[in-house]
Amino acid sequence: MTSSIIQEGTSTVTLVNVFTVEPKDQLRLVEHWQRAAEEVIRHLPGFISANVHRSLDGTKVINYAQWESQDAFDAMRHNPEAAAHLRELGQMGTPAPVVCEVVSVHHI
Amino acid sequence: MTSSIIQEGTSTVTLVNVFTVEPKDQLRLVEHWQRAAEEVIRHLPGFISANVHRSLDGTKVINYAQWESQDAFDAMRHNPEAAAHLRELGQMGTPAPVVCEVVSVHHI
Repeated sequence: MTSSIIQEGTSTVTLVNVFTVEPKDQLRLVEHWQRAAEEVIRHLPGFISANVHRSLDGTKVINYAQWESQDAFDAMRHNPEAAAHLRELGQMGTPAPVVCEVVSVHHI
Repeated sequence: MTSSIIQEGTSTVTLVNVFTVEPKDQLRLVEHWQRAAEEVIRHLPGFISANVHRSLDGTKVINYAQWESQDAFDAMRHNPEAAAHLRELGQMGTPAPVVCEVVSVHHI
């Protein structure tokens, strides 16, 4: 599957992590997120999706991730392999993670 | 419809706007986003979706918005009604908008 769904009225926990990077490091950070997601994070309990974005100006990488619960998200951060990836990602840029919930979805 | 789709390999432009707020202002900012989206923004050409999130710690409001193109997004910012809403939102908190594209979507 190559799509994720944003929906209101669920118990999904959303993590929006905006990494600030040097433009020369943007692609490297994207590729590291992709590796971390494929090799480790998507196999952890309670994982729903990770959606990696790059800013058009080259200075940011954003991971929009969905977890079944706050507990599942917290457990991920304490998983040794995931934590190792997060530490390496933190060496390539400055993370600003926000744990949130969807309050409303607006369409045409 | 009350759901949005994140997909790789499309020409969708994604705007992730992280607003930093005083916790006492979080609900007010959420409600203002919702009004702006319903009354003005969702009626503009090229709009796909706006997805309003609140951080669990009370200090952030995030709008994850999708537009058909960079031009449509730029036109929105120059629409007088939308610009007025954005100015009012900017008085309730500090925006940090990032214009980006989806590079990959990861699932279980």
